[in-house]
Amino acid sequence: MPEFDLIDRLRARIGARDDVPLGIGDDAALLQPPPGEQLAITTDTLNAGVHFPAETAPADIGWKTLAVNLSDLAAMGAQPRWCTLSLSLPQADADWIDAFADGFFALADAHGIALVGGDTTRGPLALSLTAIGSVAPGQALRRDGAQPGDDIWVTGQPGEAAAALALWQAGRLDVTRVATEPLHERLRQRLLRPSPRVQAGLRLRGLAHACVDISDGLLADLDHVCARSGVGAELRLAALPAVAAPADANTAQVRAWQLGGGDDYELCFTAAPAQRAAIVQALQAIGVAATRIGRIVAGSGIAVLDADGQPWQPPRRGYAHFAD
Amino acid sequence: MPEFDLIDRLRARIGARDDVPLGIGDDAALLQPPPGEQLAITTDTLNAGVHFPAETAPADIGWKTLAVNLSDLAAMGAQPRWCTLSLSLPQADADWIDAFADGFFALADAHGIALVGGDTTRGPLALSLTAIGSVAPGQALRRDGAQPGDDIWVTGQPGEAAAALALWQAGRLDVTRVATEPLHERLRQRLLRPSPRVQAGLRLRGLAHACVDISDGLLADLDHVCARSGVGAELRLAALPAVAAPADANTAQVRAWQLGGGDDYELCFTAAPAQRAAIVQALQAIGVAATRIGRIVAGSGIAVLDADGQPWQPPRRGYAHFAD
Repeated sequence: MPEFDLIDRLRARIGARDDVPLGIGDDAALLQPPPGEQLAITTDTLNAGVHFPAETAPADIGWKTLAVNLSDLAAMGAQPRWCTLSLSLPQADADWIDAFADGFFALADAHGIALVGGDTTRGPLALSLTAIGSVAPGQALRRDGAQPGDDIWVTGQPGEAAAALALWQAGRLDVTRVATEPLHERLRQRLLRPSPRVQAGLRLRGLAHACVDISDGLLADLDHVCARSGVGAELRLAALPAVAAPADANTAQVRAWQLGGGDDYELCFTAAPAQRAAIVQALQAIGVAATRIGRIVAGSGIAVLDADGQPWQPPRRGYAHFAD
Repeated sequence: MPEFDLIDRLRARIGARDDVPLGIGDDAALLQPPPGEQLAITTDTLNAGVHFPAETAPADIGWKTLAVNLSDLAAMGAQPRWCTLSLSLPQADADWIDAFADGFFALADAHGIALVGGDTTRGPLALSLTAIGSVAPGQALRRDGAQPGDDIWVTGQPGEAAAALALWQAGRLDVTRVATEPLHERLRQRLLRPSPRVQAGLRLRGLAHACVDISDGLLADLDHVCARSGVGAELRLAALPAVAAPADANTAQVRAWQLGGGDDYELCFTAAPAQRAAIVQALQAIGVAATRIGRIVAGSGIAVLDADGQPWQPPRRGYAHFAD
């Protein structure tokens, strides 16, 4: 099966759009950007065995490949518009492509992002996606806008993807099938089918001072905001949203998942205390929970405070590729 | 070495630009598109051992990764503007990154394309690049505009990259070092350092009816133009530009390289005969050779004619990934 047949299988699932004057099938696609807007662009690659368990179902891989990139657009407050996909497969496999497309387009259609190009190559299973969104000049949610006195917020329950990963690594969760235990299934969904907070990002424009998505872990990603903004942060352990942890998980494990676990794709943002009511209202309207977990302070670095307000040393600070 | 350090090494080589309000370092980059223009976007992935010999020098990989994508923008007549890069490396290697960057930025700076984002992941050596250019509405060179009666043109000498590949596969050319024999070195450069015909594409706007870049082979790529335009083509063997072939290559080999060899990244375009003088003048001004090799006819498919005007059967028709 030649390369273009695989692409054709994806192309058949794409509808016409006014902002795509020319789609897949030429040397490049042509896009019509919205007048007066800036574009937000992000690229993320997922390698089998590194970024997802090699046995993950293709539909889940399709969902997650797009989700991690939509999450970056969400963190910018950008409206998703177009994406391109590079797919490396060990061999041509139409069934695999069809299942992949099921997950991919379920999420793409939900957020109105159009697949406009890409290529399929022979090689180890890997997926690289570039996503483009649009945002009015000055409206983007950047990492460098946090100000001392800001509240620090997170959406959802950061740490649940890490809890799922730990269960999988312990041989207690099969990522390839629906779990019979509701808690395990909830965690499995958090890991395989994260919900990029696109609508939340759009509604936080004009409310948040700074924003980042939690892909590497809450502390690691908040640290990016602090470094870029030239500020420090205080996090209150007791304020972190509870995660749906297995009953036998100890407190240290749960803290590690909450503070250091990657792959949640929730948003962490800062905003002036005067915006509290507006933020709660904006996010409640779309069914997204948000929790205040600390505040931005002058200085640098992140202090994690226990229930008594005393400094607490986190067991780990996220993870990074190529790190030991 | 964590992921972001590798990206920082690239970021340090990127200058500020008015059309990049926010570069590498946030969840996404922000781009300022030129008012009133459309965007052309393309993605190509190169896997070690599939798209280039695994032992290729990193600087040459850097050049070629960008070149194949710039070639797609050239084939659309688009002005290169921005790109993102996904780099998968078996291990963190700052020296490799620096050498890669030497080749990458040599070509990027020559064409004014800005690297605005990307990621580095651990995995088998692979590179995925997304390039974006701009073009005024209605000015893009598409594959679907060829008309019966058009001349068919090619730039340069398609087939030389395939000749180099054949020498390498026969153990007669070391791709990693300068060849002592001038002919071999010329071919090595064709394979490793193709010149994307960006300026030619820009100058062909308003002159060419259809255009494609030769990445899969002249016949295969011209066939895309014919299929999309609903036309056929006649190619004259005797008109094909001569390739710098090794003295012991037989005619059949040379024909196969000319007609079926990929990786040249020359342009194949069609235009009305009335534009002949204008095309020669436009391309001579930038030092690009162009040759008329046939004409577009009503119908479908490509007829290759020998010196007597008789049909000639090509030995192969390009190649495709996943094909046997």
